[in-house]
Amino acid sequence: MKKIWWVRLVVLTFFVLGIWSLSAQAAEPIVKWKVQTPWPKALWQHKTAEIWAQDVFKISGGRMKIDLFATDEIVPAFEVFNAVQRGTLDAGHTWAGYVIGKYPAATLFAATPAFFDLLGYWTWLNAWGGRELWQETYGNALKVFPAGMLWAEGGGWANKKIQKMSDFKGLKYRTVLIWGQILSEVGASVVTLPAGEIVPSLQRGTLDAAEFSTPVTDLPLGFHEVAKYWYFPGLHQIAGFLELLVNNKKWEALPNDLKEVVLAACDVQMARALPQWLLEDCKAVEKVRKEGKVNILRFPKEMQQDVLQRFVQKYDNHPDKMFQKVWKSQKEFMKVYNPYMKLQSVEAEVTLK
Amino acid sequence: MKKIWWVRLVVLTFFVLGIWSLSAQAAEPIVKWKVQTPWPKALWQHKTAEIWAQDVFKISGGRMKIDLFATDEIVPAFEVFNAVQRGTLDAGHTWAGYVIGKYPAATLFAATPAFFDLLGYWTWLNAWGGRELWQETYGNALKVFPAGMLWAEGGGWANKKIQKMSDFKGLKYRTVLIWGQILSEVGASVVTLPAGEIVPSLQRGTLDAAEFSTPVTDLPLGFHEVAKYWYFPGLHQIAGFLELLVNNKKWEALPNDLKEVVLAACDVQMARALPQWLLEDCKAVEKVRKEGKVNILRFPKEMQQDVLQRFVQKYDNHPDKMFQKVWKSQKEFMKVYNPYMKLQSVEAEVTLK
Repeated sequence: MKKIWWVRLVVLTFFVLGIWSLSAQAAEPIVKWKVQTPWPKALWQHKTAEIWAQDVFKISGGRMKIDLFATDEIVPAFEVFNAVQRGTLDAGHTWAGYVIGKYPAATLFAATPAFFDLLGYWTWLNAWGGRELWQETYGNALKVFPAGMLWAEGGGWANKKIQKMSDFKGLKYRTVLIWGQILSEVGASVVTLPAGEIVPSLQRGTLDAAEFSTPVTDLPLGFHEVAKYWYFPGLHQIAGFLELLVNNKKWEALPNDLKEVVLAACDVQMARALPQWLLEDCKAVEKVRKEGKVNILRFPKEMQQDVLQRFVQKYDNHPDKMFQKVWKSQKEFMKVYNPYMKLQSVEAEVTLK
Repeated sequence: MKKIWWVRLVVLTFFVLGIWSLSAQAAEPIVKWKVQTPWPKALWQHKTAEIWAQDVFKISGGRMKIDLFATDEIVPAFEVFNAVQRGTLDAGHTWAGYVIGKYPAATLFAATPAFFDLLGYWTWLNAWGGRELWQETYGNALKVFPAGMLWAEGGGWANKKIQKMSDFKGLKYRTVLIWGQILSEVGASVVTLPAGEIVPSLQRGTLDAAEFSTPVTDLPLGFHEVAKYWYFPGLHQIAGFLELLVNNKKWEALPNDLKEVVLAACDVQMARALPQWLLEDCKAVEKVRKEGKVNILRFPKEMQQDVLQRFVQKYDNHPDKMFQKVWKSQKEFMKVYNPYMKLQSVEAEVTLK
């Protein structure tokens, strides 16, 4: 009898341990998050979120799984922030530009004009207190973490030659935000159109010029089929951040090690998403150049200077208090960063056989 | 009797489960690695490894712990690679420049002259097959993963004005590698000195000029106390990678999820170590500028062009087959990347009140 008792005990214990072990080894994720982006699936903004979701699963050893949705699958693009705040979504992988109505300082985390380069924007965020200011901007509404970057947009598409600010006069121009305000002030007729209507309007001539996004995002929309000119550099948006928004309760409920996994998955995007996106941008420009149908032009230095000064003036005069707090931080950083970058700038060009 | 049997079973099962659970919850790391760098602890190269070690612990939820050692604590700097290969060390957080005697192609992963910018070097590595070529360079000797970057070194310290290549003629110059070969060819007397002997030699005048590392690394050695001139840009080494080397058996023995943790800890260095290091470099240059004792000069564009062409020629004529395979990959990437970066380059400078 004693012997049977021990055999039963050992068998049962191993059976229970086996089940426990399997669950601990993540046959089934212990945390599942419902996350939405504000983008169509084909955009690199959404693909960045896909890579992030895969990374969360891989780095956690399968203990955390992201169910990722694209725009409108649960809520409309502009509703992602609110949906995360109230808990309809556990998190959103999105862009600060969508909430500048409520949080004007979010502009400074959405993207930057060419005040500094991508590396500078990144360094300000990570080593100069930018992350903390981002959270302060949203207060306690939810948790925010940087979740990857986009590099420069194009400088815009047009059917007219633009080499100085006065060339914008009278142009029907599609753009948004502060760049739109600046173009209005120099006499452009600025309109806001959703992605799908821009290219048909350029084709019909009801629009003279437009900027939308980075080269690899613009091309599938067909800009290069209808515009004569493509301008660079993308001064109005030289670099931008993507953001992860997390519902406060969901964040607090997350075990500490999974918090670290989520943060790591956000930070590795610099290594895993940005280089792929940037390479696709390079290839997109090369494709248009080879086709030879679009005139690719640079804005002259004087015009660049004009654009930058107008942006600085707009920023200096922005009425929002939190905006000024963040802008002050960026300006103080620039005074340390930009002179060193200028010192290290390379004028020579490598010539290859 | 039956009842006692069940009570015993339940108590024992919970007891065993409790122990199991505690160990699974990482009261004690299940994997410990002995890892060494080839650097003194004060250098940012070593600090990058420290941040990486902390990240491995945090992201793994304490299930993996790195015992990190600095140079000479277990093996000498130049022995890290061999020590990892034979298993004396589980891993090394080091720099490819130390093994170019055996693997000449490692030069191309250690650092790059100003053929492309930091972002380009990073994009080539991560999106153009650079990682795979790095592993191919070392064959099956061990596993290699990129583990952070350093940005530009200074262009060198001197007690003579240097504005063209012929100004190097007759100079006693401390440097290493291909830059040393180029300077020899233009008439410099190139010597290799360890870190601690460079500044005293400059002071005694037995050395006329020297380059060592990035600004924040150079300053504690006292260059700015003994040199009249400090040159930029650091054309000979505009960006470099750090590398994680892992013993083959140790890597194979690592559970899949911890492999992902180690790789994530390597990739987050772009976000967590590089910006801090870069900011310290900016501050170091600002400090020297403010002190006003050193003349900070830029190499003129013509001289920059001369330097780059000499580097290209050296690279094109390098006899090693694997070197040529990697160099070909870098050149093909540059043909896609550099024209786009030129198109997006910003000439204007932000002016702040």
